[in-house]
Amino acid sequence: MTYCVGLRLDQGLVFMSDTRTNAGVDNFSKTRKMFTWSVPDERHITLMTAGNLATTQSLVSLIDERIKAVGDRDPSILRAPSMFQVARMVGAILKEVIAGSSTTGQTSDAAFQATVILGGQIRGGKPTMFMIYPEGNFVEVTEETPFFQIGETKYGKPILVRAYDAHMRFEDAVKLLLVSFDSTVRSNLSVGLPFDLLVYRNDSFQPLLERRIEQSDAVYQSISTGWGDALRSAFEQLPTFDL
Amino acid sequence: MTYCVGLRLDQGLVFMSDTRTNAGVDNFSKTRKMFTWSVPDERHITLMTAGNLATTQSLVSLIDERIKAVGDRDPSILRAPSMFQVARMVGAILKEVIAGSSTTGQTSDAAFQATVILGGQIRGGKPTMFMIYPEGNFVEVTEETPFFQIGETKYGKPILVRAYDAHMRFEDAVKLLLVSFDSTVRSNLSVGLPFDLLVYRNDSFQPLLERRIEQSDAVYQSISTGWGDALRSAFEQLPTFDL
Repeated sequence: MTYCVGLRLDQGLVFMSDTRTNAGVDNFSKTRKMFTWSVPDERHITLMTAGNLATTQSLVSLIDERIKAVGDRDPSILRAPSMFQVARMVGAILKEVIAGSSTTGQTSDAAFQATVILGGQIRGGKPTMFMIYPEGNFVEVTEETPFFQIGETKYGKPILVRAYDAHMRFEDAVKLLLVSFDSTVRSNLSVGLPFDLLVYRNDSFQPLLERRIEQSDAVYQSISTGWGDALRSAFEQLPTFDL
Repeated sequence: MTYCVGLRLDQGLVFMSDTRTNAGVDNFSKTRKMFTWSVPDERHITLMTAGNLATTQSLVSLIDERIKAVGDRDPSILRAPSMFQVARMVGAILKEVIAGSSTTGQTSDAAFQATVILGGQIRGGKPTMFMIYPEGNFVEVTEETPFFQIGETKYGKPILVRAYDAHMRFEDAVKLLLVSFDSTVRSNLSVGLPFDLLVYRNDSFQPLLERRIEQSDAVYQSISTGWGDALRSAFEQLPTFDL
């Protein structure tokens, strides 16, 4: 499994992904699930992946190859005129990788599926975010659905639903994501630290912050332990159910 | 889907179940998922079910029929000498119902599976709780695993993990369950009010409280709305992540 969340705020975009990958519980390792591409002063694109690792690695490699193959008939995401067109390209490649895995070579019971969160901004357009499905189609964030989760989404959703606010500062958004990730890590072995974090401020076309948060990170530690205490005190504030 | 939780506390047992049943999102209705059997001053048994409704209704009907068929060679749960033996009986019936559905008559793609939480006390034994699987086998609560969830378990788990305490009062346990259920209801349409609640005090052999909690319940309403505020204030107490 995996856990990735992308938030759209008034100020910009915030992305966080875990790094655990596993086949069963007896075979797990660490892998990066967040990838970025940029053209200084013109575009910044972030991608997070969940699903079959072979599929997601192929997806990223194919995106990279198209960028390098200058003059190729297939356009690259660094030349796409809009984020919508970037999403279409990524969706088409994703669909192609999955279709290729499914029909050629050895067959497998394991699904080849993968899901992607794609976000960023291209000069002339607004910053936005998409969730791309294995079928290659995608949905965009809206005011009613201002964040996307992929992977093991359920444990960390209640706090997002309750505490997310489009006006929140980046600092609070990161704190919110750390709480959501911490709730997930405590309940599911297939999601694990370190986390990758990327904060993008509107119209900057470069990351404001890009950082790996390790288990030993002091702020993570204090949020993780502090959240237990804060929850219990919140719980005590609630009215009592009289028997 | 369904959501049921059983907690073992130092003082006794607390059970809560939702009442929504559905086949797809366009066909849902209300059904009771909590059932009790008792012999005054001697035993009190509570059962909660998740899974295929035909299976769980058959399970409960077969338990009832065995109780009525006095002199039958199959013993009833009202004559079993221990909760462990009750769990064996319920597990055997459950396995039989599922096996019967799977091999006879029309076949269906839908699973016939069901999972059960069984708890209670028989004079001479301690109050205890079991989770019974579709295969008919079961596990018992322990100090390390003092509660069971069945159905849509993920949304409501983080708060249980953080706030459960075996020493807690019944009032607080009910509050905890309401928060856990509220988190689930907000994220999953297949879990819905009203909730059924049963509180059992050790060595009483009768329910201390048995109650249906409706959407309009004042305490539920104040917990549901209060929890959002409490969470946000808990969240604000946490240390800030400095960019």
